[in-house]
Order: sequence, then C-alpha cells, then structure tokens
Amino acid sequence: MIDFRPILHICGLLMCVMAAAMALPALADLTAGNADWVVFVGSGAVTAFLGGSLVLATRSDAPVEITRRQAFALTASAWAAISIVGAIPFLSYGRHLGIADALFESVSGLTTTGATVLYDLDLHPPGILLWRSLLQWMGGVGIIVMAIVLLPFLGVGGMQLFETESSERSTRIVPRARQFVTYIGGIYSALTFACFLLYWSLGMSPFDAWNHAMTTISTGGYSTHDASFAHFDNPGLQWAGVLFMAAGGIPFVVYIRFVRGRTHALVDDVQVRAFVGFLVAVSLLLAFYLMLGRNMGVGESLRMAAFHVVSIVTTTGYASSDYTLWGTAAIGLFFALTFIGGCTGSTAGGIKIYRHQILWIAVRAYMRRLTQPHRVDVLSYGGLAVTRDIQASVLAFIAVYVGAFSVTAVLLAVIGLDFTTALSASATAFANVGPGLGDIIGPAGNYSSLPDAAKWVLAAAMLMGRLELFTLLLLLDPDYWRG
Amino acid sequence: MIDFRPILHICGLLMCVMAAAMALPALADLTAGNADWVVFVGSGAVTAFLGGSLVLATRSDAPVEITRRQAFALTASAWAAISIVGAIPFLSYGRHLGIADALFESVSGLTTTGATVLYDLDLHPPGILLWRSLLQWMGGVGIIVMAIVLLPFLGVGGMQLFETESSERSTRIVPRARQFVTYIGGIYSALTFACFLLYWSLGMSPFDAWNHAMTTISTGGYSTHDASFAHFDNPGLQWAGVLFMAAGGIPFVVYIRFVRGRTHALVDDVQVRAFVGFLVAVSLLLAFYLMLGRNMGVGESLRMAAFHVVSIVTTTGYASSDYTLWGTAAIGLFFALTFIGGCTGSTAGGIKIYRHQILWIAVRAYMRRLTQPHRVDVLSYGGLAVTRDIQASVLAFIAVYVGAFSVTAVLLAVIGLDFTTALSASATAFANVGPGLGDIIGPAGNYSSLPDAAKWVLAAAMLMGRLELFTLLLLLDPDYWRG
Repeated sequence: MIDFRPILHICGLLMCVMAAAMALPALADLTAGNADWVVFVGSGAVTAFLGGSLVLATRSDAPVEITRRQAFALTASAWAAISIVGAIPFLSYGRHLGIADALFESVSGLTTTGATVLYDLDLHPPGILLWRSLLQWMGGVGIIVMAIVLLPFLGVGGMQLFETESSERSTRIVPRARQFVTYIGGIYSALTFACFLLYWSLGMSPFDAWNHAMTTISTGGYSTHDASFAHFDNPGLQWAGVLFMAAGGIPFVVYIRFVRGRTHALVDDVQVRAFVGFLVAVSLLLAFYLMLGRNMGVGESLRMAAFHVVSIVTTTGYASSDYTLWGTAAIGLFFALTFIGGCTGSTAGGIKIYRHQILWIAVRAYMRRLTQPHRVDVLSYGGLAVTRDIQASVLAFIAVYVGAFSVTAVLLAVIGLDFTTALSASATAFANVGPGLGDIIGPAGNYSSLPDAAKWVLAAAMLMGRLELFTLLLLLDPDYWRG
Repeated sequence: MIDFRPILHICGLLMCVMAAAMALPALADLTAGNADWVVFVGSGAVTAFLGGSLVLATRSDAPVEITRRQAFALTASAWAAISIVGAIPFLSYGRHLGIADALFESVSGLTTTGATVLYDLDLHPPGILLWRSLLQWMGGVGIIVMAIVLLPFLGVGGMQLFETESSERSTRIVPRARQFVTYIGGIYSALTFACFLLYWSLGMSPFDAWNHAMTTISTGGYSTHDASFAHFDNPGLQWAGVLFMAAGGIPFVVYIRFVRGRTHALVDDVQVRAFVGFLVAVSLLLAFYLMLGRNMGVGESLRMAAFHVVSIVTTTGYASSDYTLWGTAAIGLFFALTFIGGCTGSTAGGIKIYRHQILWIAVRAYMRRLTQPHRVDVLSYGGLAVTRDIQASVLAFIAVYVGAFSVTAVLLAVIGLDFTTALSASATAFANVGPGLGDIIGPAGNYSSLPDAAKWVLAAAMLMGRLELFTLLLLLDPDYWRG
C-alpha cells in the first residue's frame, strides 16, 4: 500500500497557498467597492481551514521523502486538490456558477488552458477576473516545477531525456528540487513583471496589464474582455503578446542556464531552435496566404499570422481576430497546430516540440533498419543519448495521446456535440490551448452553452493533457495499487 | 545502385495479367451489344504491348531473386504500374474521364478503397462496371499476397511478427512464396464463389451477384448501383454482406491453416478473436443506440448496426442507409472506426487489429516500468514474442499513420475542402474505406465534384495506406538510393 501521509501533507500546503492567493482578489473587490470581496474572504477561510487541517493532521518530524510510486499519486492529488478549492469562488460570486461550470473554469485556469464558460467579462467585477488570471499564473509555475523537477525523474513520455539536467537518480527528489524552484520562481516573476511593464507602456490599463501579463507568461489565455486581444486593437500590444507568449513556451531550464552565465543557452538549445524556426516558418507561410488569398496588407498579414500561430502553438489561446473566417486552409492549419505544442519544461502544453523531434529521429532510424536490419545506430538529441527506452516512451506517449483524443471526441459526439465541435474541443482540451473551431467554441465563442456532461469530460481531458497522460492513466491501472 | 531489371520484369508480367483481365469486360459489353467493347480490346492491346515489351526486354535465364532493398522498389513500382494501366479504360469509355478522375477510380479500385467519381452507375454499360469490380478483386488478392509473403520479410510496421508463419529469413523469397500464392488464390476464389451463390440465391441478378461478390471478398465496396446496398432493400442480402465482408477481413493465413486441417484455427487466432469480438460489441452498442435514441425496430437496428460497423471496420465501405443522418454519436463513431481496420493478411486496410493489440501490450508494459524502472517483461502476442523491435515498429507505424493523415487533411483544407470533408476524406483514403462524412463525400455522396488536386492527393493517400506507409515513404529517403 502507498503511504498517503506525505501526499496529503503537500496537498494541504498547496491549499494553504491557494487560500493566501484569494486575499488578492478580495483586496481588488474591496478597493473597487464590490461586495464580492466577502466571497473571496469566505472561500479563503474555507480553503485555509481544509488545507491547514490536512497539514496539521499529517505533519511529522521526519524529512519529507517521496518515492517514485508516491510521486504519481501526489501529482494527481495535488492538481485535483487545487482544482477543487480553486472552484470555490466561482460557486459563490455574483453569477453563482453550477458545480460543472465552476470546476471547468478552475481546471481550465490551473491547467493554463483558457477555455471559459464566462461571458460578459467586461461587466465582471475585478476580483473574479483577477482570480482567473491568478489561477493561470499559479498553474503555470506549478507546471514548470513539475516538468523540470518531477517528470524527468518519473520518466513520463520520454522526459527521462532531461533527467541529468535537473534531477538525480535517487529516491530523494526534494532537496535538489528546492534550488530549481527558487530559480524558476525568480525567472517566472521577472518575466511576468517585464511583460506587465511592456503591456502598460503600450496602452493597457494597469489592471489589464497585470492580468494579461499573468495569463501570457503562463500561456494560459484568459482575458479580462470577451473580445480577448481584439479588444485593444493595438498592433504594438499584439507584437508584445507574440514576444511574451513565445517566451512562455521556452524551457525554463534554458533560462536558468542563461542566468547562470551561459549566454548562448538560448541559441544552443535544439528544442528552442526548432520551436522558433517552426513559429517563424509557419507564420510566414500563413502571412503569404493572407496577403495573396485574402488581400490583407503586408503589416497586418504578418502580425495576424504571427499572433495566432504563436498563440496556438504555445497553447495560449488568445485571439485578436476570428481566424476561422480566413477560409478552409486556415481552419485546417490551426487544427493541426493544436497537435504541435510548445517546449517541455515551459508553461506550454500539447505534444511538445521535443517529442516531434524524437519521433522524427526514431522513424528515420527505423526506416534505415528496414533495408539494413542488423544496423545499430547511436542516436542523439542535442548531445543527449536517445535510447530505445526513450524512443518507446515518446512513441507510446504520442500513440496514447492520439487515442485519448479520439476516444474523448467520440464521447463528446455521443453527448451530442457536432463533428467539428467535438473534435476541436477534444484536441484543444488535451493540448491545453483553449479555443476550438466552429460557431460554438471557436475563437469568437464560449463553452457556456455546452451540456454539463461535456464540461466534465473536457475538464478531465485538460487535466490529463496537463499531467502528460500517464501520470493520471497509471492510477487507473490495478497493478499500480497492488504494488 | 539498385538493379531494376527483375523489378521491371515483374511489373511487365503484372501488366500482362491486367491486359488479359480486360477481355472479361470486353466480352460483357459485346454480349450486351454495347460499343464500349472496343475500348477494352484497345486498352487490352495497349497494356499487353507495354507489359510484353517490358517482360521481353528484361528477361534472363537466371532465376528471379529479389533482395530486401529491391523488394521495396518492386512493391511501389508494381502498384504504380497496375494503377496506371487500370486507368486506361476509364479514359476512353463513353464518359471519357479526365486523367485525374481515371487514375483516382483505378487506384481506388486496386487499393480496394471503393471511393468513386462515377455517378449514374445504374445507367452504365456492364463492361465498365465489371472492370471496376475486377480491379478490386485483383487488388484484393494482390494485397493478401503482399501482406503474407512480402511485408513480414521486410519488417514493415511490425509485420515481422508474422514472419515465421509464411516466409524465412533468407534473401530468396520467391520459391517459398509460390506455395502460399496457390493456397491464397484457391481460398480467395472459393470464398468469392460462395458469396456469389448466396447473393444470387437471395435475389441479386447474376451480374450484380458476381460484381458484389468480387467487391465484398476484397472488402472493396464498389457497387453497380449509386445507392450501393440500399438499392436491394433486402434484409437477407444485407446479412449475407455482413458475413462475407467479415470473411474478407480475416487473415488468410488462418484460412490456410484451417484448410490444412487445423480445424480450430479460426477460434484460436488472437487477432480473429479480437476482431470478431470488437465487431459484435460495437454493433450491439450501436443497435441499442438506434433502438433507444432513434426509435428503430429491434431487427432493423441490429441489421443496420452490424452492416455498417462491419462495412467500415473491414474497410469495405458499402452503405445500406445514410448513417450520417443518425445523429452526432453515429458520426463520431464511424469516424473513429475508420482508424481501426481489419486483420493483417486480409484484404482489409487501415491501422489493423493486431497493431492496436500490440499498442495495448506495449503501453501496459511501459506503464509498469514507470513505477518499476528495472523491471523486464517478456511480452507475447498469441504465443509470438513481442520484441522491443516489434513494439517500436508498431508504435512508429501508428505515429506516422496519424501524422500522414493529418498532413494530408491540412493539404486538402488548403486545396479548399471544408473541415469535415477534408478530415474524413484523408481518414477514409489512408484506411482504404471509401465513404467519408458530410454532404459531398458521405455515404450518399460522391467524389466527382472535388477539385482535381484533391483527387491526386487522395489517390496518393490510398496507395500509401495500402502499402503500409513505409514501403512508399522509404523511397523518399535519400539514404535508400545511396546504398
């Protein structure tokens, strides 16, 4: 049996952090003279009580040690715990969302997906808007820590490739993690502040600038306006968004190396090179299509193309225009881009760049063996050895990702969603992007009108995508519990 | 450099077979008093001349031996050669199809896809209808021979799993192949004849019965009527279709074992068991949905469900009703079923049952290793060892299949097809099913109105799917040609 004590202890600590964070929206509503400040104080009190009780009930003098087996249960429990308490304010503020809606909004926030069931955002009080942005900002840093410190150690989906960089083969992952968490927190905060300054200087109100800075760096995509980035109608702001969305999609390990003095770290990383190269190439292609096929001006084409390609590939999900009106080619492209994803160890979701690179390396090696069966190739990726184990992990991840996406799409169709909505909702949830295709959940739409069953399914899909599938799937395996 | 002499020699022989086959539609048109018999005599003469010249120019006294490297070029060249000569009659008969249409129809026939650009089939002379059925029938037997004799030897997509059954690790694959080809030809003809007898006895005209028997056993799906199986409106015929479509989706190696006296062969095979179990389970689920959700009667629900589930999973593509009118759940289900496929070593296309089984075995083993990294499992599939190599082959196949499907869907969207048409056309072409979704290419529709560029792309996709992707992809790799 698994010892749940340290797991519950950490969940309790995280719930206390969530409770403390609720003070900020309370303060915002109080300042604005909105009565909803009571909601946040109340939610904070409940959350603090729950979290505090857990911490006290499970404390111990021994240092916290987490085994490999416990780490899987911890990851799933932690995300479940913060998702549930994150939903409390949505249940009780002015609009009184139902449980399905509140949980959907909380999960969509914490997983930095950015799909929303709220409309008339412009009429909302500041507290709840700030809470949505905070969910994404906290979720974003949680994802980076998980992806750098925990998942390589657990070997999920080929992430053992990055193991030597951040963790060591030992059952004690906590001590070494502290140092990384400090670096990550510092860099993440600095990037957010830089983004805020730029947004503010380019014309956003300080409140909008803070909110959008938090949801940009976390590649989350929640906005304080129904029209998302289109609300501002400001080319400079859109380019600033391109810059900082891309910054959020870059591995934080690379930033850490940079900060530690390896000034070429950003240029040297094979994943970053492919990521940036891909963004530039696809944006240029789309810009040409917009110029020639849709008669857009040069500047607007480049900006529109770059903004939306970066928004979807980094899995942010901001929209500054309804790109689904750009014709069948754009729709096909944006659907396919959902399956790319950002870099690992960043706030971006999806299949991720390095997995596509490993897939390419593995398939090329496999094809060479077709004609030369006894050939043995030593494969490498940016100087790291791509073992058979890593190839198998990555291939299994991609196959299971596609399988899970398909099963979920069928489930949504059974619930009653039309073909385009079902497919794109499943894709965008697993990749933690946000907007789908079609009139209902497209970039100009909203998830509020979907049946509750679809919202539950999509919330599960967002969590599954965010936890790299296997972290959750493993818990469904009876073998895991048998031990 | 590759020695192309034996490759061209075999291509020439196959073209002579095609020329001989053209005598049958010539005879049919002559009997019916239709002037198109000249078309087939002319096409046959041209084909015989081309094929005969190739054979004579490349003959040699040495026995024909094919190396592994040559086998890949041979497979691709052979399918290209028969596809091109198969298109000749379509260019010159009464309707005078353009090159894109003629090649699309020929490739769709030979790959047993069954997507068609012809309409008003009921008004067509018998010769061209018979030619379409013959293309599928000959394509079907070609696929079985290729899948049993050639591909396991080449190790494409995990098919080395079936190597010991049919071929031996040697560079001489021809002698041993002869014996298998004889068995396959005999069983294939016997099944076709049995299917003809049943169709005829249940009310089809002899001409319809022959044509449909040929396109049923080959899981092809071409019909002599625009309405496909709905034309007959005969429950008995639909159940007969279910039986023989399923028969076409079963590995012919199993039939060979059965004929050789292993009477339990059909029941013992793990792939056949999963295939039949899956068909029964999904048909029952869909039948319940039709009874409860669409108020259909019990008998009709069972028949409609079984007919269409078997039609899509075996990649036949007959329709006896427009199932896309059964609501979003049915549409989602049928799209997903496109990605299942029949058994390997049968006429069915798609990803195929055994690959899904190996995927499941590999993913389970991978998940066990997540908590116990040093664990070593010996995996087996129906008594055969599932090595790391086979797992990697299967996973690479599935990943590349999904990738190729996605890229093709985007290409079709760029050409101008709407989201549903582009996605379903790509899926149905790679899986060699036939009908897609939506008004244009759905079960009640037709491919004739698509732009020529889309027809070229889809013909390439059908060939790629039929040749298990890597047989064609390998030829695009410069390493293959270098040596």
